[in-house]
Amino acid sequence: LDSQKARLFREEYLELHIYEQAQIFRDLNEQQRARVYRYLKPEEVGDMFDAMDQDPEEVIHYLEEMTMAYAAAVINGMYTDNAVDVLAYAKKEDLLGYLRLLPAKTAAEIKRMLHYEDKTAGSIMSTEYVAINGNQTLASAMEAIKVAAKTAETIYYVYVIDESEKLVGVVTLRDMLRNDDQAMVKDVMNMQVMAVKVDDDQKDVAQTIRDYNFLAIPVTDYNHKLIGIINVDDIIDVIDEESVEDYSGLAGVDLEQTTENPWQAAFKRLPWLVTLLILGMSTTTLISHYEELVSQASILAVFISSITGTAGNAGTQSLATAVRRLAFKDEDKKNIWQLLLTELITGIILGIITGFVIFVIVGFWKHNFVLGFVIGFAMMCAIVVANLAGAFIPMFMDKIGVDPAVASGPFISTLSDLTSVLIYFSIARIFLSFFVGQ
Amino acid sequence: LDSQKARLFREEYLELHIYEQAQIFRDLNEQQRARVYRYLKPEEVGDMFDAMDQDPEEVIHYLEEMTMAYAAAVINGMYTDNAVDVLAYAKKEDLLGYLRLLPAKTAAEIKRMLHYEDKTAGSIMSTEYVAINGNQTLASAMEAIKVAAKTAETIYYVYVIDESEKLVGVVTLRDMLRNDDQAMVKDVMNMQVMAVKVDDDQKDVAQTIRDYNFLAIPVTDYNHKLIGIINVDDIIDVIDEESVEDYSGLAGVDLEQTTENPWQAAFKRLPWLVTLLILGMSTTTLISHYEELVSQASILAVFISSITGTAGNAGTQSLATAVRRLAFKDEDKKNIWQLLLTELITGIILGIITGFVIFVIVGFWKHNFVLGFVIGFAMMCAIVVANLAGAFIPMFMDKIGVDPAVASGPFISTLSDLTSVLIYFSIARIFLSFFVGQ
Repeated sequence: LDSQKARLFREEYLELHIYEQAQIFRDLNEQQRARVYRYLKPEEVGDMFDAMDQDPEEVIHYLEEMTMAYAAAVINGMYTDNAVDVLAYAKKEDLLGYLRLLPAKTAAEIKRMLHYEDKTAGSIMSTEYVAINGNQTLASAMEAIKVAAKTAETIYYVYVIDESEKLVGVVTLRDMLRNDDQAMVKDVMNMQVMAVKVDDDQKDVAQTIRDYNFLAIPVTDYNHKLIGIINVDDIIDVIDEESVEDYSGLAGVDLEQTTENPWQAAFKRLPWLVTLLILGMSTTTLISHYEELVSQASILAVFISSITGTAGNAGTQSLATAVRRLAFKDEDKKNIWQLLLTELITGIILGIITGFVIFVIVGFWKHNFVLGFVIGFAMMCAIVVANLAGAFIPMFMDKIGVDPAVASGPFISTLSDLTSVLIYFSIARIFLSFFVGQ
Repeated sequence: LDSQKARLFREEYLELHIYEQAQIFRDLNEQQRARVYRYLKPEEVGDMFDAMDQDPEEVIHYLEEMTMAYAAAVINGMYTDNAVDVLAYAKKEDLLGYLRLLPAKTAAEIKRMLHYEDKTAGSIMSTEYVAINGNQTLASAMEAIKVAAKTAETIYYVYVIDESEKLVGVVTLRDMLRNDDQAMVKDVMNMQVMAVKVDDDQKDVAQTIRDYNFLAIPVTDYNHKLIGIINVDDIIDVIDEESVEDYSGLAGVDLEQTTENPWQAAFKRLPWLVTLLILGMSTTTLISHYEELVSQASILAVFISSITGTAGNAGTQSLATAVRRLAFKDEDKKNIWQLLLTELITGIILGIITGFVIFVIVGFWKHNFVLGFVIGFAMMCAIVVANLAGAFIPMFMDKIGVDPAVASGPFISTLSDLTSVLIYFSIARIFLSFFVGQ
């Protein structure tokens, strides 16, 4: 009876797309999951885990529930790139156990891939590709592809290698169908095959796939030996990950893993908040230096936040534009000084107009056009400086090899606060006699 | 001689990937481009323009250089989705001219697609798909695919339709290769085919393709009739576009088209900068109300920027987290009140710790622990409010159907400035006697 239930369950469950299987599986409790392990073959569970490629930590938790042998068989049923992602989170003794139980070839591949550095081509590539020899007809190559169709991650791009496993060409399944069966692979293949190196940055790999509209790109070692491929679906995750990183930078919070636990959330945000508070104390100290000025003309205090706020907004705008430009690597095409000059002129235009607006507002509101001029002129200078800093700092960080995205947003705000206050009070002091006692 | 040069040029140029052709083409001057138009067939130029799918405005500029007939032939050589993107920027008289010269079927398709609303599935789909009838063997279907291989955007997913063109299944080329030639398509196909509706949001389409790791997804009208497909390479552009939109929101600047012209850049940023300045005047007015308080205790002015800045940072952090969460549509799974409660607790934890830090700093620095308490307590309250506003506002905007990404960043900052100042001076007034004259 139990076996009949199992058959029914299998029939219905396996009908579903693996992503839907995964969605249902996630909502089960531990007993129910144990039953799933009993009813499904490990390779079927492996396929389902492939659909959870965005949450490797979750998968490791499920693996720990299984017997070692079953878990190893599940891992064997996953694509190597996903298996490696998951195993990176495994406890050391579990990892060794799994590796001992896996087929020697798979274990060796996984071991090698675990060594590739995070965010390189090697860390996201998969080893389930189709590679053939060029000295055969398309018909015989097609037979090889049919065999590979069971396990390969993609069969739509077939890579051609020579005797020493060096990558010499690529032929798409489309090309194969469009040409005569008896043509030789080497005559049909495209010899100008684009490939990435195993330690290339995943960001650059994503850009290449995006520019060329590829479905996959081969990965080679430094001897041009083909060692893996990266599929477009893995690249989609990379593009998202990279833009999340850029956001995190603008907002000063790590967005890669959001949590529902308020303690965890608080302790993720706290370091930046306190760091910025302490950095911000420099602004406070600076204002403190001008306290006597403020006590003589308290009206000055009223406009501090207006000037620092506007300069901060201008800095954030130019920062976001610069980060975006760097993400596209457009800076290779243009001279960096040219860009800074552009940003300087932009800042001056913004500063003059915004400064004039506040001059008019303050002038009429407080019936004091000298005060209006001081505020307007200070705001103009503060905007120019913040705008330039917003563009310069990420470019400079990029030049010296630091990722410009890391929390540059709040850093720019703090810096622009400091300069704005300095500019403001310096100008105000000169014109002090015009609004003392207002 | 000219014809020999042309042959040589053609040979070398057409060897290159269309993306590389496009890169070279972009660097040519007008005379050189005119020669390219003479040497290449219009469909070859069309293929190259397909590789410029990220810059439709550029392509329209090139089309205007050509004769009408040549331009129409080029457009005919492009994939419809790219052609439509480009033609959206064409002058009206040019558009009518092209449509007249195009084959009637293509013209009708383009005309229809120009009507789909921006950012829907219809606006990014392509009509070059392969659709077959289920009542045939795989072998005969394979013949149909070979014919389609010349023009279809993808042949790796083949869609199965019934007599009334309704979508009934999908069969991948991989499935076809793995099954017997004589099997019927309808027996091999997957009947649980995922499809999107023509007016679905492109963001949701992207999420589906990403979750299911599809290479393409079919688009149907409201009668389940198959009318197009969306390919993964178009989805990559959507994912980037959507995250750029989210950024733009955080930074208060439209990042979708960056420009090198400082006037254009300035006038794109100016509206937000001035709007925020004027919104910020509410904060200034509020501070102005407390001017007398400041003139009695100028020390209070020193800490305004510290409190507004820290509250602003906390608000931005919680905003970025909320925007990220909404992008993933996680809020469907969780109760909105539950999330706000989490954010409230997070804010209280952050507020207490940060407030305590500033209490200690100010207490020791100014040798005045009452002042420290006022600053610390005000900062705590300001952080809690800003944190809650950062989470609540985007969720509320999403609920009422407004895109939360649109410039919510600077808006939150302004709002948090206002509440911080109000909280700060209200608390300070109570304890005024402790630091008058400090």
